[in-house]
Amino acid sequence: MYEQVKPIELMVQELSKLPGIGKKSAQRLAYHIVSMPVENVRRLANALLEGRQNIRFCEVCGNYSVEPKCDICSNDSRNRSIICVVRDPRDVAAMERVQDYKGLYHVLHGVLSPMDNIGPSDLNIRSLLTRLSDGEVKEVIVATNPDIEGEATASYLARLIKPMDVKVTRIAYGVPIGSDLEYADEVTLAKALEGRREI
Amino acid sequence: MYEQVKPIELMVQELSKLPGIGKKSAQRLAYHIVSMPVENVRRLANALLEGRQNIRFCEVCGNYSVEPKCDICSNDSRNRSIICVVRDPRDVAAMERVQDYKGLYHVLHGVLSPMDNIGPSDLNIRSLLTRLSDGEVKEVIVATNPDIEGEATASYLARLIKPMDVKVTRIAYGVPIGSDLEYADEVTLAKALEGRREI
Repeated sequence: MYEQVKPIELMVQELSKLPGIGKKSAQRLAYHIVSMPVENVRRLANALLEGRQNIRFCEVCGNYSVEPKCDICSNDSRNRSIICVVRDPRDVAAMERVQDYKGLYHVLHGVLSPMDNIGPSDLNIRSLLTRLSDGEVKEVIVATNPDIEGEATASYLARLIKPMDVKVTRIAYGVPIGSDLEYADEVTLAKALEGRREI
Repeated sequence: MYEQVKPIELMVQELSKLPGIGKKSAQRLAYHIVSMPVENVRRLANALLEGRQNIRFCEVCGNYSVEPKCDICSNDSRNRSIICVVRDPRDVAAMERVQDYKGLYHVLHGVLSPMDNIGPSDLNIRSLLTRLSDGEVKEVIVATNPDIEGEATASYLARLIKPMDVKVTRIAYGVPIGSDLEYADEVTLAKALEGRREI
C-alpha cells in the first residue's frame, strides 16, 4: 500500500474517526482540504476547536450553551411553568423546530439502560428535581424517544415526580415507534405534543 | 427556524462547505464533535490546519510534498528514465497502489479544457519540458483520465514531446471510458499500464 504524504495520511486518520465517514470519504475530504486556501482551512479548524472549547452545558437545563445559562433558560418570554425533558441537546433543537412549544427544557444526557449499565445516577435527574422544588413548574412533558429505554425513563420520572404534585405528561404516539426523535418531521412532532397524555 | 447554539451553527456552516456533506450530515458531525473530548477535537483541527500548512508542491514533479522535493522524486531506487504524467496528486496515489510502476511522475494540476478556459499555460507543462531536456528520460506515459479533456491533453503533450526524441505512450483502454482514474481498481490499472501504446 502506497504511503500517502504524511500530513494527508494524518488528516485521513482523524477524519475517518468521525461517524459516517469511511476511509474513502476521508481521503476525498483530505485531498479537498489540501487544495483549499489556507485561510478557509483555518476557519474550518477554528470553528471546530474553538466551537468545542466555547461550548458548555447550561447550568440550569443541561442544554449546550456558551453562557452559564442557555438562551432558552434566560429568555423571559418562555413559559416557566412547563418543562420538556429530552434525552440530549439534539432533541432540544428538534423540539424547537416545531415552534409550538414555548416552555423550558431539561436535558437528561441519556436514558435509563440497564443493558449499558446506565442508571438514574448517570443522568441529569437530580437537578430536574431541584427545579421542581419551588412549585413554579406545573407540568413536565417527557419527550424521550418512543423506544424501550425512552419509555422506561418516562415511567421512572413519572414515579419520581408525581408525588411532588407536578403533572407529568408523555408526548403522544404521533412519533412512529422505534424511530429517532431527531428525524421526526415538524408536523408529527406538533401532533405528538398536542396529543400528550398524563402518565 | 430555531437558532442553534452559535458555535454549533458555525461548525455546521463550515462543515457543510465540504464536498459530499449536506446540512443534515454537517449537523450530525457538529453534535458529535461537540460531544468529543477537547483533546480529540484539537487533534482533528490540528491535523487539518497544520496538515494544510505543511503541504506544498514538489518543485520537481508537482506532487504533494512536505519537503521541497517529494518522496518519489528523491527516491534513488525509482527508474529515472520514465515519467508518468497525471492530472492531480490523487492520481499519483492511485498509480502507486498498482505497485507495478517504478518510474517518476509529473502532475499537471488539471487538463486542457477550452470550456473552462484552461489552456496549456494554466497547467504544469513547462517544468515537464525542462525535465525532458537533459535526455535522461526515455519515455513519458500520459495517464490522464480517458475522457475528452484527458485525451485532448494527451494528444497535445504527444505533439509537444515527440520532437524531443522521447517516446510518448498512453495508458491502454483497460480503464473504462468516462470513469475516474481515482476509482479504478488495481488490476484494471495494472492492465492499463501493461497495454500502453505509442501515441
